Parts: sequence; C-alpha cells; structure tokens
Amino acid sequence: MEEKADRQYIDIRALVKGVLRGDRAALARAITLVESAAPQHKNAAQALLAQLLPYAGQSVRIGVTGPPGAGKSTFIDTFGCALTQRGHKVAVLAIDPSSALHRGSILGDKTRMESLSRDENAFIRPSPTGGVLGGVASTTREAILICEAARYDIIIVETVGAGQNEVTLRSMVDFLLLLLIAGAGDELQGIKRGVIEIADAVVINKADGDNIARAQAARAQMKRALRFVAPATVGWATRALTASGLKGHGIEEIGEVISEFTAQTKASGGFKQRRTEQRRAWLHSAIERQWRDILYGHEAVRAALPQLEAAVMAGELPAAAAAEELLRLALDG
Amino acid sequence: MEEKADRQYIDIRALVKGVLRGDRAALARAITLVESAAPQHKNAAQALLAQLLPYAGQSVRIGVTGPPGAGKSTFIDTFGCALTQRGHKVAVLAIDPSSALHRGSILGDKTRMESLSRDENAFIRPSPTGGVLGGVASTTREAILICEAARYDIIIVETVGAGQNEVTLRSMVDFLLLLLIAGAGDELQGIKRGVIEIADAVVINKADGDNIARAQAARAQMKRALRFVAPATVGWATRALTASGLKGHGIEEIGEVISEFTAQTKASGGFKQRRTEQRRAWLHSAIERQWRDILYGHEAVRAALPQLEAAVMAGELPAAAAAEELLRLALDG
Repeated sequence: MEEKADRQYIDIRALVKGVLRGDRAALARAITLVESAAPQHKNAAQALLAQLLPYAGQSVRIGVTGPPGAGKSTFIDTFGCALTQRGHKVAVLAIDPSSALHRGSILGDKTRMESLSRDENAFIRPSPTGGVLGGVASTTREAILICEAARYDIIIVETVGAGQNEVTLRSMVDFLLLLLIAGAGDELQGIKRGVIEIADAVVINKADGDNIARAQAARAQMKRALRFVAPATVGWATRALTASGLKGHGIEEIGEVISEFTAQTKASGGFKQRRTEQRRAWLHSAIERQWRDILYGHEAVRAALPQLEAAVMAGELPAAAAAEELLRLALDG
Repeated sequence: MEEKADRQYIDIRALVKGVLRGDRAALARAITLVESAAPQHKNAAQALLAQLLPYAGQSVRIGVTGPPGAGKSTFIDTFGCALTQRGHKVAVLAIDPSSALHRGSILGDKTRMESLSRDENAFIRPSPTGGVLGGVASTTREAILICEAARYDIIIVETVGAGQNEVTLRSMVDFLLLLLIAGAGDELQGIKRGVIEIADAVVINKADGDNIARAQAARAQMKRALRFVAPATVGWATRALTASGLKGHGIEEIGEVISEFTAQTKASGGFKQRRTEQRRAWLHSAIERQWRDILYGHEAVRAALPQLEAAVMAGELPAAAAAEELLRLALDG
C-alpha cells in the first residue's frame, strides 16, 4: 500500500529539474499541476512554485488584448516567430474566463498559431477551461513563473477584450499591447472606454491591401486621442502603430518599441517597481480568495446560510444584518 | 454624563416615523446615517433598516446609464417631472464610484436637474463621495429601501457608464435604460461592449433639431443590433427608442414602455424573481465585504502582513504560500 501511495505521489524534485532543463513535457505537467483544483495537488503545486521562484522573473511579459476579430492569433503567430528568429524563447499563455461558456474558442488555440506551434523555441498553452476569473488569473500568473524558470525570456499573455479581462491582464504584464482594427470608415472598431488608458502601445492591425489607408487614418486618430489620455506607464508615451499580422508589416517595429520600453523603464526603475506592485496586488487577491473559501467551507456557516438567504430573499431581513449574523457563527465556531 | 450620552444617541424611532411620514428632512438624515462609515452609526443604521424594511419594495426601480455627454441629467429632469405630473413620487439617486477622484461632478447634481429639484414630489440625492465601489453600491441599495419606505413609488438610479458601474446598477434595478447619442455619422457614441446585453431599453437621446434624422438612423441601427443579442430580461424584447430630454419628445412613450414592462414581468413572475435574486447577490456581497474587514482587522494578521508582503514583493515567497500563512494566523488567534 505504501509503495502504491508513493508511486501516486508527484515527484516534485524531478518536475523541478525537468522544468529548469527546459523540458517541454515537464513544463506542461507543471502548469497542469498549478491549474489543478484538486485539493491533493495543492501542496505539491506550492512546493513546486517555491522551488521554481528563485529562477523566475527574467523575462519580458507582454500582454496582447483586443476585441474579437482584431486578429490577435495571427498577430501573435507572426510576432512570436519574429522573436524566436532573433534568438528568444517565447511562451504564449491565454486568459479566457469565458471559456466555461465558449469551450470552442480555446480548443483551436494551437492551430490558430500554425507557424509558432511548430517552432521549437515556442511554447503555446491554452487557458484552463472553467473556473472563476480570480482562479484563472492566478494560475496564469503561476504559469508565467514556471515558463520563466524554463528559461522562456518572452512571455506573451493573450486575452480577448471583454468584461474585466484587460484589467486582469494589465496586472500581470510589463507591457500591454492593444490590438484594434479600422472600421468601415477610419473609426476604430470594438474599442472599449478606458482601455487605451492601460495600454503601452495601440496597434492598428490588418494594415494591408485595401485597408492600409484606413488603418493609417485610424492610427492618426488614435494618436490624437492619446494626447488626452494619461499614459499607462509613467514616463512612457503610449505609441500608436499600424501592423499586418498576416503580411508581417510593422512587426519588426513593434519589437523595437518593446525593447525601447524595457530599456527605458529598467533604467528608470519603473520596470521593477511595477513588478513589485503587481506581486503585492497578487498577494492580496490570493489572501481574499482563500479567506472567502474558509468562510463558505465553515460548517456552521453552511448550515445557517440557507435560512438566512431565504429570509433576505423574501425581504424579511436586511442583507447587512444577515451577513453579520453569519459572520458571528463563523467566528464563534 | 448619562444624559449627555442619551442626547447624542440617534433617536431611531423618531427617524423611522419621520421617514414613514414622508418627511424630507428625516429621509435625508436616514440616508446620511446608512451612508456613514463611522462605527458608532452602524448599529443605528441596521436598526433603522430593519424597521423600514417591511414598508419597502413597493416601487419600480429604474436604472439610467450612458456615456458622459449623453444627456442623462436633462433626460432625468424631464422624465422625472413627467412622472410626478402623473401623480408619482420620484426619488433620484446616483452611484458615482469615481467621485473620490472627481468631486466636482456630483456637486452639481441638484442644479443639473433644475425643474425636478423644485418639484415637491421629487427627492434628489447625490451619491456619497469617496468609498469603494462595494460600499457605495451597498448604501445606494439601502437608500432605495429608505426612499420606498417614504412612499416614493419610482426610484431612478443614475450612473455614468464607466468601469463596472452598469453591472452594479443592473444588480439593483428592475428596468435598465441605456441612454446614447448619435455621432457625427449615424453611428452610436460611447457604447461599451456588453452593455446593450444588460439594457431593457436603449434610448437615443438628443433627437431634436438637426439631429433627428441621425438619431432615427442610429435607432434603426440599434434595432438591427438588438436582434443578435440575448435580451436582459427573459420574455422582454429590448426596445430601441429615440427621445429628446431637452424638448420632451418621446418621454411619454418611455413611460408607457416601462409600464408595459412592469405589467408583463409582474404577470410572468419575472419581476419578483429578479428582486429575489438581487437580494441573494446583495447578501453575498455584504458577507464578503464584512468577512474581509474581519481579516484585515485581526491583530496577528496586521502584525505579520508587512513582512509577508515584503517577501512576496521581493519575489522570495509565492503569493499563495504567503496567503496561507497569513490565514493560519487569523484562524489560530
């Protein structure tokens, strides 16, 4: 029996070694472990992370977001290949909190980045399906650390621009790239209020063929708009660029802009400061999520909640009073 | 000394009586009490709410949202006066989580609704400045209950469309009205992805003078868009309308649409079901906010947090491990 239990036990040392060696199978298994919601994996996942942490952090983390149809996958495919050709190791991760609803959308991730998925210096990881936003965001953060320990020096995190996704994405990357396309006129399509305020570069994609003039007009419009917006990164003027993921136009320039950004913010200390602040925010979201789990896992709370809920739902008890009663139970037990 | 303490004690019975009588000064004081963040007001506020709750709930709660410049204040001014002329008592509340940043924007609330603010059957209440979103949203919900107990039968809750405001607003109203304006072409201005999915009516405002044709074209465009969107309320086809808050055009029709909505959803049970579900959600947000306050108020947690934070911020400790250690302290103490 003991031997059997031993065999089922996850060999963390071997997994750590595999990740540090850059072994892709070990990398995939390590990410699966931190994504696991199974309680018996929790300690193993934490041990793994603690051992990999000293090797993490040495990358540039680039967020890519934009509305559906902006061409994110094609852009990342082309951009990622350009980076591996320059000698980088590129990991692509996705945040997709809506995936429980739209499972189809992520199954295709690998095939949507055809060239990059065949590149041996690239690693593409679709997001976990299901789970709450906090959970997915948390495991994406941990997946970044694991990829860094496996010596991927560029981490691209992708998410579709919907709900609070971009804000979550901003909280885990160094550089945020907003991908847009020009509409039928020169106006920008699918742009969300507040999103250019968190971007370090706005790229008008699909600037190819008949679309070039429109894309350039949209870029000029964006440049004007950016004048009135506080930059996402202190000391960095948010750029407006055009590109074609399909044809490869403008891709080189985007790489240069990001290099410039990195050099500048590392020199000013802003790069390190943002990472430090992100870790602090990450800690607090972890604390609050775990603390909430404790409350709802409490026996007396679980027993009393249905009745209190019913009284509040019937309009017989104010929510604040019911909440207080419930917390009294949690603290007494 | 005891007498002095007694005098400082808030006379809840008198306040309840005043609110139930519809006394405006008592109403204002009651809302101020629930908005108060002072610990010594908490019990008084809860006692007040518990006593008013049996008299609350008998209103139609209408949310009005839209981008800055859509003409929300003028619209509500005209719409509110039309309602009081039909014999309704109208309360206007505002949610403004950004008010800590932009204090100026709400100071003008009263004067921005000139006619309504002079109407004795209307009560206008600017939102509290400062506070977190949860806090403001929670006191807005409680202000609704208090206004209902004072026999206001139409409650209009207004918020600017930014961040998560509309979602918060949707969680506390029966009917959500999205106010938009036509742009330079016939396209719609300032529309946020996902917001028409939570609206029960989309009103193209400023349909007056030179702007009528553009507003009508924008309405037609919205009608087409709505065909592809799941309605916010089961069994209710989201309406697209035009109006002019300034000239009063279309205001009557909006009132009729809301009456139709109310009659229909009350008959189907959807009205009651939504309210019940909202109370449940409200309970859980109250629970989670209070539970979080307990954690961060815990002595051992406050003592340990700075060091754990520093270790996480320095990249020496994974966030999840630090969170767990902190929670162990909270549970042991």
